[in-house]
Amino acid sequence: MDPRDAHDTIRAVSYRDGVLKLLDQRKLPQIEEYIECRNAGDVAAAIRDLVVRGAPAIGIAAAWGVALEARRLREVHERPTLQTLDASLHKLKASRPTAVNLAWALSRVRGVLELDPTDPVAALEAEAQAIQDEDLAANRHMGQLGADLIAAGSNVMTHCNTGSLATAGYGTALGVIRAGVTNGKIAHVYAGETRPWLQGARLTMWELVRDKIPAKLIADSAAAHLMKSGEVKWVIVGADRIAANGDTANKIGTHQLAIVAKHYGVKFMVVAPSSTVDMTTENGSHIEIELRHAEELFGVATGKRHVVEGAEAWNPVFDVTPADLIDAIVTERGVIEHPTTEKMKSMFG
Amino acid sequence: MDPRDAHDTIRAVSYRDGVLKLLDQRKLPQIEEYIECRNAGDVAAAIRDLVVRGAPAIGIAAAWGVALEARRLREVHERPTLQTLDASLHKLKASRPTAVNLAWALSRVRGVLELDPTDPVAALEAEAQAIQDEDLAANRHMGQLGADLIAAGSNVMTHCNTGSLATAGYGTALGVIRAGVTNGKIAHVYAGETRPWLQGARLTMWELVRDKIPAKLIADSAAAHLMKSGEVKWVIVGADRIAANGDTANKIGTHQLAIVAKHYGVKFMVVAPSSTVDMTTENGSHIEIELRHAEELFGVATGKRHVVEGAEAWNPVFDVTPADLIDAIVTERGVIEHPTTEKMKSMFG
Repeated sequence: MDPRDAHDTIRAVSYRDGVLKLLDQRKLPQIEEYIECRNAGDVAAAIRDLVVRGAPAIGIAAAWGVALEARRLREVHERPTLQTLDASLHKLKASRPTAVNLAWALSRVRGVLELDPTDPVAALEAEAQAIQDEDLAANRHMGQLGADLIAAGSNVMTHCNTGSLATAGYGTALGVIRAGVTNGKIAHVYAGETRPWLQGARLTMWELVRDKIPAKLIADSAAAHLMKSGEVKWVIVGADRIAANGDTANKIGTHQLAIVAKHYGVKFMVVAPSSTVDMTTENGSHIEIELRHAEELFGVATGKRHVVEGAEAWNPVFDVTPADLIDAIVTERGVIEHPTTEKMKSMFG
Repeated sequence: MDPRDAHDTIRAVSYRDGVLKLLDQRKLPQIEEYIECRNAGDVAAAIRDLVVRGAPAIGIAAAWGVALEARRLREVHERPTLQTLDASLHKLKASRPTAVNLAWALSRVRGVLELDPTDPVAALEAEAQAIQDEDLAANRHMGQLGADLIAAGSNVMTHCNTGSLATAGYGTALGVIRAGVTNGKIAHVYAGETRPWLQGARLTMWELVRDKIPAKLIADSAAAHLMKSGEVKWVIVGADRIAANGDTANKIGTHQLAIVAKHYGVKFMVVAPSSTVDMTTENGSHIEIELRHAEELFGVATGKRHVVEGAEAWNPVFDVTPADLIDAIVTERGVIEHPTTEKMKSMFG
């Protein structure tokens, strides 16, 4: 075991013998419960219903979803091919619209099928495992790269959950925080609770408390008051899609943090594997932003309805942070400071 | 009845024959329940526990609290005086630290007692009633003044609850919205849910739906995505204390909205009665910001705990918006655009 895994025993997505186990993130932290997926439909439903979330974890789960479906076809004596798996590939791709890692992982899987391998089940399982292993390795590498940007003893703030629960393990932004805490760069973490699904309150605080990382939860709307105090040096977030010019789609509220950070001279870091970069999308205005049910704002994941009957709501769950508000984009390929289309092209073109 | 009351039948604070009825705002919108206060201690507890909230409503309730206490003293054959009521005046003043209307209302009440009136109970009841009536009149006047600043057919956004529930009736920022909807200035309202107590989700949406005002609830952190779209022209908020230079303390999240509004060229309006202005406080850095229990972030008013045991939180419930981010301060005395100490002095000095 890598020594860095000592504090990182959470696995949101794990596969064994035809069963994909997903830690049900809707029930955390009160209940640690796993659901088992046996075909692509199970996985697509789990992604749509937020059993599994976080762009990298969604991509990994989807890749396993195709492998599961291939196994199912083999059991009913049908050969798994691009054609017989086509509907499943589409269903998985449509399960969440904003994160590009999903499309990226499925395109890798499609590449395997295009080679028409002798044992398609084994080939698809190997590809899904590779996607998962590469994600974990990328996170560890990004953790170091990101932590290197931070002055020793800094306090930082993060948003949503970008940890082991959102990835193959270790995390993206939370990976930088883990690395930064380990090497003394980071002293204290502030985590925004992240409405409407409270991923920060429920999931990030759960990971931070497990790892004994000094941290405080704040309301999303307390960030300006915090940054005005000079108490934090960096805002560190993940990404669901990074456009060719560096514009970054991430959890709703990210854009607001970036504006406030710029206003108070706090640095802003985006941490995501290169699979999150979408060079075919020129800029953020072309990124589809998922709108979810109004009902998500009328109650809370764990509570009763608290909004009057007859009310309406507008519930975009992502937003786009323009590149000019971003100080650094960290991927496993390296760091881009003050991203521009030229810099992005030279690393990802 | 004033015709403007047609859609404004909510009374958060009402007094009759020695009983102060407070609509329990912790239980709205699910349950419409009133609690009855019969002495100053009851009222102080109700203010501290958020049965009644909103700077003007707190001031009104506190004034009635002194009148109730005077009645109680009379019943036990003790004369209500500045001396015999001193402990109650202090207890009420200490019930919430940030809003200045509380101190202002109690100083008016103290002024009545200093005159040593023949019938102190009647004099205190008359003063509390005057404070309440003047607040309602101020709100109606501010509603017109604020709405006059808005171009016809605009969409606006608001934060927290500043309506009938937070005042003697009609509301401050929500009073401008009521007036603006009535005269065609405002087409649609976006209300931020306002963590941690969800005053926007629970209370503002309740008032807006009752008044059939077209409105949508948003997560606090969706404001930047909304303003970027060009969909709103004004952010309209209330205030808990306005310093001599125009710096404004209001519900946590207000400062963030003002920064984002400036970033996207959206106008920012503060609406509050002149009793909210504190010319003895030079600027916002001298305003005490109330920190409340971490537990308020660990659950939701209506739900179960959703944060892991062992977690910590930082829970400031107000913040200060610097004057240079404010386009207009509206009080019943008039409008100050781009507030400065000089402009504030000439209106409130």
